[in-house]
Amino acid sequence: MLLTELEHFIEEDIGYNDVSCSIIPDCKAQAEVVVKEKGIIAGLSEATQVFEYFDVLAATDLTDGSAVKPGDVVFTLDGGARSILRAERLSLNFLGRMSGIATLTRTYVEKAGRVRIACTRKTTPGFRKFEKKAVIAGGGDSHRFNLSDAVMIKDNHIAATGLEKAIKAAKSAASFTQKVEVEVEDMDSALRAAELGADIIMFDNMQADDIRESIRVLIEKGLRDRVILEASGGITLGNLEDYTATGIDVISIGALTHSSNWLDISLRLNPVKTG
Amino acid sequence: MLLTELEHFIEEDIGYNDVSCSIIPDCKAQAEVVVKEKGIIAGLSEATQVFEYFDVLAATDLTDGSAVKPGDVVFTLDGGARSILRAERLSLNFLGRMSGIATLTRTYVEKAGRVRIACTRKTTPGFRKFEKKAVIAGGGDSHRFNLSDAVMIKDNHIAATGLEKAIKAAKSAASFTQKVEVEVEDMDSALRAAELGADIIMFDNMQADDIRESIRVLIEKGLRDRVILEASGGITLGNLEDYTATGIDVISIGALTHSSNWLDISLRLNPVKTG
Amino acid sequence: MLLTELEHFIEEDIGYNDVSCSIIPDCKAQAEVVVKEKGIIAGLSEATQVFEYFDVLAATDLTDGSAVKPGDVVFTLDGGARSILRAERLSLNFLGRMSGIATLTRTYVEKAGRVRIACTRKTTPGFRKFEKKAVIAGGGDSHRFNLSDAVMIKDNHIAATGLEKAIKAAKSAASFTQKVEVEVEDMDSALRAAELGADIIMFDNMQADDIRESIRVLIEKGLRDRVILEASGGITLGNLEDYTATGIDVISIGALTHSSNWLDISLRLNPVKTG
Amino acid sequence: MLLTELEHFIEEDIGYNDVSCSIIPDCKAQAEVVVKEKGIIAGLSEATQVFEYFDVLAATDLTDGSAVKPGDVVFTLDGGARSILRAERLSLNFLGRMSGIATLTRTYVEKAGRVRIACTRKTTPGFRKFEKKAVIAGGGDSHRFNLSDAVMIKDNHIAATGLEKAIKAAKSAASFTQKVEVEVEDMDSALRAAELGADIIMFDNMQADDIRESIRVLIEKGLRDRVILEASGGITLGNLEDYTATGIDVISIGALTHSSNWLDISLRLNPVKTG
Amino acid sequence: MLLTELEHFIEEDIGYNDVSCSIIPDCKAQAEVVVKEKGIIAGLSEATQVFEYFDVLAATDLTDGSAVKPGDVVFTLDGGARSILRAERLSLNFLGRMSGIATLTRTYVEKAGRVRIACTRKTTPGFRKFEKKAVIAGGGDSHRFNLSDAVMIKDNHIAATGLEKAIKAAKSAASFTQKVEVEVEDMDSALRAAELGADIIMFDNMQADDIRESIRVLIEKGLRDRVILEASGGITLGNLEDYTATGIDVISIGALTHSSNWLDISLRLNPVKTG
Amino acid sequence: MLLTELEHFIEEDIGYNDVSCSIIPDCKAQAEVVVKEKGIIAGLSEATQVFEYFDVLAATDLTDGSAVKPGDVVFTLDGGARSILRAERLSLNFLGRMSGIATLTRTYVEKAGRVRIACTRKTTPGFRKFEKKAVIAGGGDSHRFNLSDAVMIKDNHIAATGLEKAIKAAKSAASFTQKVEVEVEDMDSALRAAELGADIIMFDNMQADDIRESIRVLIEKGLRDRVILEASGGITLGNLEDYTATGIDVISIGALTHSSNWLDISLRLNPVKTG
Repeated sequence: MLLTELEHFIEEDIGYNDVSCSIIPDCKAQAEVVVKEKGIIAGLSEATQVFEYFDVLAATDLTDGSAVKPGDVVFTLDGGARSILRAERLSLNFLGRMSGIATLTRTYVEKAGRVRIACTRKTTPGFRKFEKKAVIAGGGDSHRFNLSDAVMIKDNHIAATGLEKAIKAAKSAASFTQKVEVEVEDMDSALRAAELGADIIMFDNMQADDIRESIRVLIEKGLRDRVILEASGGITLGNLEDYTATGIDVISIGALTHSSNWLDISLRLNPVKTG
Repeated sequence: MLLTELEHFIEEDIGYNDVSCSIIPDCKAQAEVVVKEKGIIAGLSEATQVFEYFDVLAATDLTDGSAVKPGDVVFTLDGGARSILRAERLSLNFLGRMSGIATLTRTYVEKAGRVRIACTRKTTPGFRKFEKKAVIAGGGDSHRFNLSDAVMIKDNHIAATGLEKAIKAAKSAASFTQKVEVEVEDMDSALRAAELGADIIMFDNMQADDIRESIRVLIEKGLRDRVILEASGGITLGNLEDYTATGIDVISIGALTHSSNWLDISLRLNPVKTG
Repeated sequence: MLLTELEHFIEEDIGYNDVSCSIIPDCKAQAEVVVKEKGIIAGLSEATQVFEYFDVLAATDLTDGSAVKPGDVVFTLDGGARSILRAERLSLNFLGRMSGIATLTRTYVEKAGRVRIACTRKTTPGFRKFEKKAVIAGGGDSHRFNLSDAVMIKDNHIAATGLEKAIKAAKSAASFTQKVEVEVEDMDSALRAAELGADIIMFDNMQADDIRESIRVLIEKGLRDRVILEASGGITLGNLEDYTATGIDVISIGALTHSSNWLDISLRLNPVKTG
Repeated sequence: MLLTELEHFIEEDIGYNDVSCSIIPDCKAQAEVVVKEKGIIAGLSEATQVFEYFDVLAATDLTDGSAVKPGDVVFTLDGGARSILRAERLSLNFLGRMSGIATLTRTYVEKAGRVRIACTRKTTPGFRKFEKKAVIAGGGDSHRFNLSDAVMIKDNHIAATGLEKAIKAAKSAASFTQKVEVEVEDMDSALRAAELGADIIMFDNMQADDIRESIRVLIEKGLRDRVILEASGGITLGNLEDYTATGIDVISIGALTHSSNWLDISLRLNPVKTG
Repeated sequence: MLLTELEHFIEEDIGYNDVSCSIIPDCKAQAEVVVKEKGIIAGLSEATQVFEYFDVLAATDLTDGSAVKPGDVVFTLDGGARSILRAERLSLNFLGRMSGIATLTRTYVEKAGRVRIACTRKTTPGFRKFEKKAVIAGGGDSHRFNLSDAVMIKDNHIAATGLEKAIKAAKSAASFTQKVEVEVEDMDSALRAAELGADIIMFDNMQADDIRESIRVLIEKGLRDRVILEASGGITLGNLEDYTATGIDVISIGALTHSSNWLDISLRLNPVKTG
Repeated sequence: MLLTELEHFIEEDIGYNDVSCSIIPDCKAQAEVVVKEKGIIAGLSEATQVFEYFDVLAATDLTDGSAVKPGDVVFTLDGGARSILRAERLSLNFLGRMSGIATLTRTYVEKAGRVRIACTRKTTPGFRKFEKKAVIAGGGDSHRFNLSDAVMIKDNHIAATGLEKAIKAAKSAASFTQKVEVEVEDMDSALRAAELGADIIMFDNMQADDIRESIRVLIEKGLRDRVILEASGGITLGNLEDYTATGIDVISIGALTHSSNWLDISLRLNPVKTG
């Protein structure tokens, strides 16, 4: 994280005059960051950076993506008592939010087997890079980061200009370094997109059966190997296996970032001895 | 939202060169932002500001806090087709995240009756003011915004300096415009905090029965009217009524911001007629 | 001070190409920051941060709020001659401005006895947090920092909506963590404000006699203990004791920040020996 | 003022959630900004920009540098009642601070006759350009803005490298577009500086008599016309005429920015009629 | 361009107090931006944004990528005389730099026929998006924008980890939305990269003959259709056709951004009539 | 360079998730930055700062302005392999661009003899201070940095207000610390400008003969010593000596910044030994 970002976050949480920290003695202290529920940890380097900003030494044996269980120590901390308390909430907010995303991602990833699980652009404004990083920590795929990363022709683009025209325009306008992805809602569109050279085809809100049938026809027509196939929309842990069984390559899940709960992690300050 | 914040969010979502939007005709279009599930809307002014940045006219009959149901139109949009698509994801991210928080908050608020429901500082770094605003839209209380707002003596502060010393130091260091809140874990501490002049006492992770008993004794000792009483920790929709029945004034719920799912809202571009 | 703030201030004072510093040898030097008039020092940590940015070691025996007299050494400095000169003006500007405020504040504080002296929001745009911090160093109260800190119902609010309506709206809209302050210009309003549950009542531009009488009546009606009482407007060192004698709790003084002169402090570079 | 600066100042004064403004009806209102003491107005365009940011129409007949007296209307305002109150403090802070500087500057300027009155770099960090602008509004000279503007060889530079070496280095290192100014403390240094081609010589903390004598000798040696002569240090309204009588060109006064009090200016909201 | 970027550029060019513009009457004026040499125009929207910031109406018949010749009018301007002069240099700097890049790009593009001409990351720090946009205006390909756009395995990566390991790691670590490009310096590496599934192979600093032979073998082995082939290093307008004749898909040219000269464009203010 | 600037440039080049660097082992490595063509080096401190940001130790024996030849080592680097590769492009972009400018400047400077070579404001938006610094490294003069540095009356100013009025206004409005420069296109204007007290006269787009004749007349009229004389417009390496022979003091050359090519410099990573 850039220092300018970090200071923006610190200013948000601390404000201009933190009286609550000034009431405690400015002495050395130790503390531990402890996990309170099972999950996958993420946000370690962000939390470390927060602690270091306040000159708190943060030691950890974990790496982003490590599995944790209740009682596991994420960090042992060594620094000024005031500094530890100033860094507490922000570092926990990073860990809680990012580990929550990594945990949900891992659940999908493990159930999906060889199929990649990807997130979307449904992220908290200003916090996307951390949320995408958490998805990667959970074993997921970050998908494109923003509108300039890869070219994605969505329903609303097709509504505005038509499928064929849109793909041709995209292939011409895109850099040779970019992939062109097309969102389709039926088999015919999928076939045309593959014929027109789409690099990725995304089956949007289609039933697993329809996707399986579309893939069958793509194979039949010799178009399957040219494209990466992605499914999205209405896919949950409950019906995930219906979709992984279709032969799809990637399943993207908005819920990874928009509906994951935080992992419960807290900070315990060891009693401070003052003489 | 400051323009500088808005541009930061826009840059995050769009990047340097949005090819996908350049492939559609640069013509006028209409669109609708539509709700797909029951809930409470929030983020209207933020979404409006996003649309206006792209010169898209966004009309709405709702206000933050309005109840919505599937099919309700949040905005009717009028502007360039490219502009609408550029504004789409960011405005929906505001609406989805903020409405999700408002919706969960409202559920708690309705169940809590006369007891205030408040959020915490467990927020997404960089996005706190929008998350707190969404809590307010849902009928909740924003609690303090940051460490400088009000003085809050938490377990870790007491661990570092002791309850009595902490309260005295806080009362002396705080501005007369600030309240001093003390977190307690048992009745004795609550009584002492009240005697020492705490403005707010927060029962942290205590059973409903213990809180009720503490309040009874506070009343008995004539200390009840001097303080606002808050309960926090382990309170869910499932056991909320146990706590509201204790005589508490405020219940604070971290889940409002850390474990609320987005409200499902999407944007439908009307077919564009190109001559 | 955030590093981003510091760099903004440095850029303002140095610009793109400091020729004047490049003309001196790039050798080690010592210097002293010396006080030239009696006062209270403030801004030590800000000045230290400026020096450290330029890798100048700044040692001091003082803390913010220390009394100083002509000839007192604030800092002994050790670093590159160029670096010391680059850091000179900005560090002195912090010390001069902040110590000036602390000094004036201390004068009021000492004369006010048990009554708190507070500053206002009449501060230099962009520099408020340093000016409020200087007031605290001088023994004063920072009052609220901005419009979101505490709720303050001022004459113009009452002009717009009426006293009773304003207080009720404020009590409902404010967080339970915020105090509600009401500005009044006569005894009747003060009584009504107290009855309606204001946390703080500010007597605005009222004569000391009228304030004393108002307080007498508040006591008579049993309302005095519920509120903090503040006086403001037209109070100077000349008439301060008239007001402290009224029984008021707090006196706020705009002059602390808008009409305090700098404390005279300068930097003496020791002769540099070059071989 | 850049919009990014303005938003930084607004954020400082308003914070995240201005409850006090939300309690009044969101209706149209009129207001006036009125002067309460005699002085010179400055900061009009800054205040206008603040009002316009909040969509408040601000009309004025004055320009920066106009003389004002108690009761004069600086602005008549037309806009939302809430918006006017949100803009109030920041716009008044600009007007109060800048007009205070302009007023003090004008006093010096009028007394100094043909001699220019200049300010220094003793300014509030982050607010220099507004303070220098206020000096110009008062009829003063802004002097150099920062270390890169003009080359100024000060006592500490000379202490580090010697006068002759410093001037030669400066003349060589400076751009041909920059003037080179030298600070001297006695006549000999002044003569040498003039001989070495200094564009400006500043008599630092010298008695008026010594300055007069130095100028006499400079004239005698035919060096007077080559240089601009500036006096600085210990010059007040009380002894100003001693210095203006020496034949000096410019007198620089730190007090213009570090010890000027605000001009008293306030905002009166007209009663709002709500139906 | 974001407003925050624009203001950063304006501040760089204007500074705190533009005396030169204040010396001319503040009246309405017309002006023209005129081309002085043959080329391709780019930067029109950036220049327009600069003019509009100063409330100058800027009308143009051109679009980025239009061919221009000496005497062609790029903009007719209508606005305040001061405003036009304040906007002059910055708008011309955008036009001059970006049109220079577009012009050189077009020369390569026209000579390259069906082969794409791409730029590199050899750009001016802070100005990349405008330089890449100018390449696109000239008909070129922007290549990847930054290290996160596409995965590019360069000589130094291979030196650090080996070709095979690097490609496998990249294919696994990259998002499915990203292409993986490999830089090779001989035919064998090219074949292995293609076999290992590289999306793009870049022949780095190889002779045209060696590239042609490599492509022949790739075709022979049935690997040609799987990859996009790029050549880079030592390719100039003088030897471009040797490379386009090899069967390559893309040629990337650092010179587009690091060694293009500005297009000569200037602004002519029409005489101002003052009454 | 400010850290905030540096991070802005780093973010531009790296983006949110640099996969390419993550594929190599995170081990220690050495590298060299090597010059590939003859020139003058500049940008050393900027490149060093980039390397240090990534904890790469960068050692150099050169200083800005040193002459270099193919094979010369600019830096030896020691740090993490990933870090070196992350820092590579940005540090080379500084070195390449700044050294290119320094190299072209030196060529002019050496040919110009006693005449100063200056650059202009024709710089890349956002990168001016580095480009001006490179000119200085090459032995050139930075000319004024922005519109507030010195007062320059250009053709368009004179078109708007007339020469005499413009000079008088400028002399009155400028600070005594600023020089006033006037752009003239013929001898008569030059004479009038000198008589009116211009500090610098710039002969704009005039033939060398006309400039020589103008200088002859200025000398004749005893005006020569009062002014610095600058020539600009249409001066190239080809005709430079015609202009240096006129008796001019300064020649300004837009090409230094707008048409200099980068110096070819690259980074070689030493093979990494992994066990």
